[in-house]
Formats: sequence, C-alpha cells, structure tokens
Amino acid sequence: MKIPDRDDIAAAAGRTAGDLRRTPLWRLPGAALGLGCAEIWLKLEHNQIGGSFKARGMFNRMRSLPLPAAGVVVASGGNAGIAVATAARALGVACEVFVPEISSAAKRAALAALGARVVVHGAAYADAYAACLERQRESGALLMHAYDQPEVVAGAGTLAAEIEAEAGLPERVLVSVGGGGLVAGIAAWFEGRTVVEALEPERAPTLHAALAAGAPVDVEVGGVAADSLGARRLGTIAWDVVQRHPVASRLLADEAIRDAQRRIWRELRLAVEPAAALPLAALWSGVVVPAAHERVALVVCGANLDPATLG
Amino acid sequence: MKIPDRDDIAAAAGRTAGDLRRTPLWRLPGAALGLGCAEIWLKLEHNQIGGSFKARGMFNRMRSLPLPAAGVVVASGGNAGIAVATAARALGVACEVFVPEISSAAKRAALAALGARVVVHGAAYADAYAACLERQRESGALLMHAYDQPEVVAGAGTLAAEIEAEAGLPERVLVSVGGGGLVAGIAAWFEGRTVVEALEPERAPTLHAALAAGAPVDVEVGGVAADSLGARRLGTIAWDVVQRHPVASRLLADEAIRDAQRRIWRELRLAVEPAAALPLAALWSGVVVPAAHERVALVVCGANLDPATLG
Ligand SMILES: Cc1ncc(COP(=O)(O)O)c(C=O)c1O
Ligand SMILES: Cc1ncc(COP(=O)(O)O)c(C=O)c1O
Repeated sequence: MKIPDRDDIAAAAGRTAGDLRRTPLWRLPGAALGLGCAEIWLKLEHNQIGGSFKARGMFNRMRSLPLPAAGVVVASGGNAGIAVATAARALGVACEVFVPEISSAAKRAALAALGARVVVHGAAYADAYAACLERQRESGALLMHAYDQPEVVAGAGTLAAEIEAEAGLPERVLVSVGGGGLVAGIAAWFEGRTVVEALEPERAPTLHAALAAGAPVDVEVGGVAADSLGARRLGTIAWDVVQRHPVASRLLADEAIRDAQRRIWRELRLAVEPAAALPLAALWSGVVVPAAHERVALVVCGANLDPATLG
Repeated sequence: MKIPDRDDIAAAAGRTAGDLRRTPLWRLPGAALGLGCAEIWLKLEHNQIGGSFKARGMFNRMRSLPLPAAGVVVASGGNAGIAVATAARALGVACEVFVPEISSAAKRAALAALGARVVVHGAAYADAYAACLERQRESGALLMHAYDQPEVVAGAGTLAAEIEAEAGLPERVLVSVGGGGLVAGIAAWFEGRTVVEALEPERAPTLHAALAAGAPVDVEVGGVAADSLGARRLGTIAWDVVQRHPVASRLLADEAIRDAQRRIWRELRLAVEPAAALPLAALWSGVVVPAAHERVALVVCGANLDPATLG
C-alpha cells in the first residue's frame, strides 16, 4: 500500500487551512522545565478544535472525499468521535457515533451536544465497531476511522509540518501512541530527518507489541490513558509507515503519567489529559534523556478531561 | 513623577530574560472565536511562572534594587504574593507575605509551599498592608507592592514588548485592571501607537471611578474576579500613565465574566481565572466591537483557579 507522504500532508494542510486552528508552539529552555536539553518545544495541540489533534485527520478525510447524504459514521467513545462530530457540524453533514455501553454518560452528552446521533451498542469497543460497519453498509455514510485511514494519518502529519515551518527541524520529536495514526503522520512528514520516538503506557503498548512480534498484534489495554490510547492493535498504515521510517517505542508506568499530568498543570498551567502527558513524563522520569544540545518537540495532544481531576 | 517608559521596559526585559518565560502568542482569525474582526491575538500570560503576569514586575524589581539580608516583604493574598514568593525562591532570598484573615487556607498553603513565611494579620487587606509596612520598617526588607512601584509597572510592560516583537502592532489591546499596574505597563510601552482599552468588573471599577472623579478614589470591591482585580484604588503610577496615554475603561457584569471563563475552557481549552476572561467577555458580550480590519491583542493574565470550578 502507498503510505501517506509529505505531498499528501502538504495537500491536507492546504485543504483544511480554513477549518483548523494553527495551534501555538511554545518554546522554552530545557532548564525552565528542569531538563538538561537545550530547548523544549510544546506543540499545544490540546487547544485544537474539539480539544485534540484528531480534528486534523477528520476534516482532511471529509474534505477529500464525496460526502454522501447519509453523512459520516464512526465508532469511538473518545476524541475521534468528538472530532468527527465537530467536523460534521462545521461542514453541515449528519453524523452517527457508535459507542460501547461502558462509555460515560458525560461523553455521550458531549457528542449529542455537537449534534451527533449517539448509538450505544455492545459491551466492548469491538462490538460498537462491528455495529458501525453494519450501519455504514446499510446507510452508505462515509466511514471514519479513528487512526487507520490514509487521510486521517496525513491530517495528523500537518501538525509536524507546522512545527517545522515555525521553528525548523528539532533534534527529536516525542509523541504518544494509541492506534498509531498520530505517530505515523509525524514520521511520514519527517521522513527520518529527525528522531521520532513513541511513548506508550505499559498498559496499552500497541506499537511496542507490534515491534516485538514483527507485526501488529492485539494487546490488553487499561490504565490512566486508556480513554485515548486504548486502541487494541496498531493500525496497518502506522505499521507500514514505521517499517519505512523507524520509530522506537518507550513504555511508561501509569504513575509517571499521572504525576506528569499534575505537574504540567501545577508548573505550566496547561490542563491536559493523561495521553498528553506521556512525552513530559518520559523526560521527567528519565525514560528518555536527550543530549545537551537537543531541541526536543513534544506533542501535547489532548485536553478532554474533567478539570476537577487536576487538583 | 517620571513614569516608566519604553527604555525602562526594554531594560526590564533584558534584566529578567533569564528568569521569565516567553509566553505563547496565539493568533487566530476572529471567525474562529465567532467574532467579526480580522484577528485575535491571545497573549497566554497565564502560562507565566507563578501562573500570572505578576512575576514580570516582581523579578524586575528584585533584579533592579539591592536585596537586603532580610529579603522581601509584601502584602497580598493573591497572584502578587505568589509572584513575589516565586521570585524570592528563585533568587534565594527570604520572603514574608502578609495576608488578611479572610484569605483562604489553600492560598496560604500555596505561599508556604513556595518557602514564604505567611503572616496572617487583620480583617481586611488594608490591615495586612499596614502590618506589612510596619514589618518592613523593622526588618529592612525590600518592600514589594502588587502594582504601584515603577519596576513593577515596567516589568508588566515587557509583555507588550513581546507582543510587538513577535507580531507587530495590533490595532487594539484589551486588558483587565485591578490596581492598574498591568494596564500602565502596556500603555507605557505602546505610547498611544495603538488603542489600549481597559476592562473592569462592575463590582471593582478602580480606573472607571478614577476617570469619573478626575483622580484615584476608593471603590467598593466584590464579585467573581475580586481575588485578582479587587484593589480598592487605582495606583498613582497607573494614574500618571493614563493621563499621558489615555485608556478607556469598560465595565462588565459578573455573569458575562463567568460565562466567558467557562466558554474559554469549553472552546479553547485554556483554564483561566475570571480576571483573565474579561477581554473575551467584552468581545463576546458586545461591550467592545472592533472593526472588521482590526487585529486585537488580548492579555490572558492569570490561571490561579481551582480547575474544578470550570465544569
Ligand atoms: C489525546 C490523544 N492523544 C493521542 C492519541 C493517540 O492517537 P493514535 O490513536 O492516532 O495513535 C489519541 C487517540 O485518540 C488521543 O485522543
Ligand atoms: C490574573 C490577574 N489579572 C489582572 C490583574 C490586575 O493587575 P493590576 O492590579 O496591575 O491592574 C491581577 C492583579 O493581581 C491579576 O492577578
């Protein structure tokens, strides 16, 4: 399969320029964060429309393909569902979101408030996904996937293009992984011109397991970031991308993730979800130790959290 | 009295460059915020060290004057106290903070956690301030004022200098006012080259009352932003500055402030305190209506809040 490349990402950026926010890139000396490297660049993607980077891919897919009268359909209890519903509302098309029974009432209400029709189906995500596929065949709606479609991956890559356009090439980029759409878009943009490193919860290690097995495999998922990083298996596009542009994966314990999330609030006044705390958790806990000259770019990927949990 | 000018502000910026963070300037099309003007520039000063712009003035004063063995002393239950304690810790000097009995246990604990000696004195802020002055005479510590010292005003002005260096001259700047140190620093930097407009809670209208009376006068203070904007009287330096570089004041109801604070969280994922919501409250409620061509800079001034209140 042809993997998304820089041309696809540049085209995605052009196609979605009027839909998305250009999020801030906050550059700080490493010392300001208690770190020994030269600079930290925080890409504040939690300030993106819908509260995560996911809107990039969803707008890109919906702007790339014909939109049927039935609109779009997706299975997701998390940020991907919110991004699809946000994009559908902005583009004036119908939207159905399939969620499993375990999804919270707050999330369903948030989706409904965006105008989506929320369908609760099955005990686990896989059941909701199966029902979503069936519904898509019946309605003819455009199927949206949280991470494993080329337009979704290319859309995620636009944030890497923004970093480079604003500040040049960093020595290293740190990014969280769930199904791998985000890391794939970023690795596809940089094409090996800088080191891209993936951070995963020990309890949701999709890329780590795929690298160990030599192919994507199912993993058990749980832990503090499962909401956003709890895909069961790395996407096929992500796998193809990391074959071409290798990405190492480092694992983080839940406690390091939660500590970093709280410290990010306390010291930086950024209110982010656990998934967005992994890159700083890796630096603060010494799992990743950049050299003194390095400028390290971090993707602060989402802010769909109950702010009361930051205290 | 000589008011702080651009040279003082440029010198402050140089003197404090190693102490402070250069905060992000987030530029968005007005339409992204539902507004009719060309651009909104958000100066994310709530991400400054200590969670508000106040650190700028405090570091500047402490870097400008000899630091006695007794360290520094200040009367404040709010962001100024936190900023002084933060700067004192960074510079390795002792710090005493006088707070009134009404100050919250959480604030006192935060000050103590920064290494400050917290002295609770009197029913009202004025009592704590009187005790602080007495203590200063006795100890010889450097007296820090929340808004009415030239170095504090010049320090606040450095954020205006950063905006202009990064993005050029906006057509308008919107800023909240308590004792007026912040607006004075900004007006002193721009020197009438752009429109500077002050926003105040109806229930804490120090500049508004001063303009009406022809001189600073005491006002009753209360309301949702009283914590940060609850100075009882405009500072003398601020008054001198606005004589030279006029600043109009607009008043906002508590409800508009609170609505804007929640909307800023919901739509932008910025967790800010009520004082920081006044500029967007003014735009969203139609109290300030910029022309279509305008680029409007807003100071997002603080994030000392309990995040649980955003829900
Ligand atoms: C906030 C956040 N960060 C990171 C990810 C991981 O993205 P991906 O599934 O593309 O690896 C997600 C996925 O939903 C997310 O919501
Ligand atoms: C967050 C915040 N915004 C604005 C102000 C107002 O500043 P000034 O008192 O200099 O007018 C303060 C004062 O403490 C503050 O803490």
